[in-house]
Amino acid sequence: MTIFVDMDEVIADTYGAHIEIYNEEFNQQLSTEMCLGHEVWQMVPVEHQESIRNHARRTGFFRDLKPIEDSQSILKEISRKNEVYIASAAMQFPNSLVEKSDWLDQHFSFIPWKNRILCGNKHILQGDILIDDRSYNLDTFKGRPILFTSPHNINNNGYERANNWLAIAEMLL
Amino acid sequence: MTIFVDMDEVIADTYGAHIEIYNEEFNQQLSTEMCLGHEVWQMVPVEHQESIRNHARRTGFFRDLKPIEDSQSILKEISRKNEVYIASAAMQFPNSLVEKSDWLDQHFSFIPWKNRILCGNKHILQGDILIDDRSYNLDTFKGRPILFTSPHNINNNGYERANNWLAIAEMLL
Repeated sequence: MTIFVDMDEVIADTYGAHIEIYNEEFNQQLSTEMCLGHEVWQMVPVEHQESIRNHARRTGFFRDLKPIEDSQSILKEISRKNEVYIASAAMQFPNSLVEKSDWLDQHFSFIPWKNRILCGNKHILQGDILIDDRSYNLDTFKGRPILFTSPHNINNNGYERANNWLAIAEMLL
Repeated sequence: MTIFVDMDEVIADTYGAHIEIYNEEFNQQLSTEMCLGHEVWQMVPVEHQESIRNHARRTGFFRDLKPIEDSQSILKEISRKNEVYIASAAMQFPNSLVEKSDWLDQHFSFIPWKNRILCGNKHILQGDILIDDRSYNLDTFKGRPILFTSPHNINNNGYERANNWLAIAEMLL
């Protein structure tokens, strides 16, 4: 099977990085639990929102992300018997492109360059499964869409959901 | 219609750049006409081949490419009535990623970031038309494949061929 896997908030902890940077710079105590059902920038005072929305433009932001728990070991196992592609809507942030490539080299070296896609819209992808945290990416996918749980999407309905990588393992291994 | 357009040797003159850099550095008089049916690196002495094969790893190589003749005006016209995506197999050269993004900003600003794809394999693309100079990219495409003539592919048969962007205009406008 051809399986597409999103990066941010599926294998890379972007959400956690937003909170960590925000807390450090503004001396706050924001937590994931306090943000459930929202984007991080929506949960801070208006005068701090612009700062969070600009994290993605910072040099090093994408390079320093932590892998999501269990994503490496389970995706490696899945990739033994499937054609796994990483598909990230990265084109909005040109500085992120090489950082995402380097990050994959570092944390997901078993995914070769031929199986990496940096794109804008994802509705041009043709394959069997798409694992993504954004319903607007899943909406147009003609295969089996799987919504990967992220703090911002806990109230989204209408898609098969995986709460973590152990759940993905049960579905696909 | 959804139309995918390759970058190198379709809208960006990679072939010409290889020859130009080679001639300058090795004080040679290689021309496109001398190379027909071959890759540029195949047409130089063995001891020079490695240098040409490493052009793509140089900073600035992709940023400085010239647009292919008529590609800008005709693609702009095509994009008025179609969903045009630029699809480049760029992931092999991480340094090229931001350069390709910047180059598109400069020369094809009418193609928004949502319609840009940097990938490895192209057989994950789902759409109506793929314009590419490499038959191995066209082989697996389920829509209408169009081989764009480049010096290296003049002997390839088996695909609908466009010799230049005026030919593309006749086909698609």
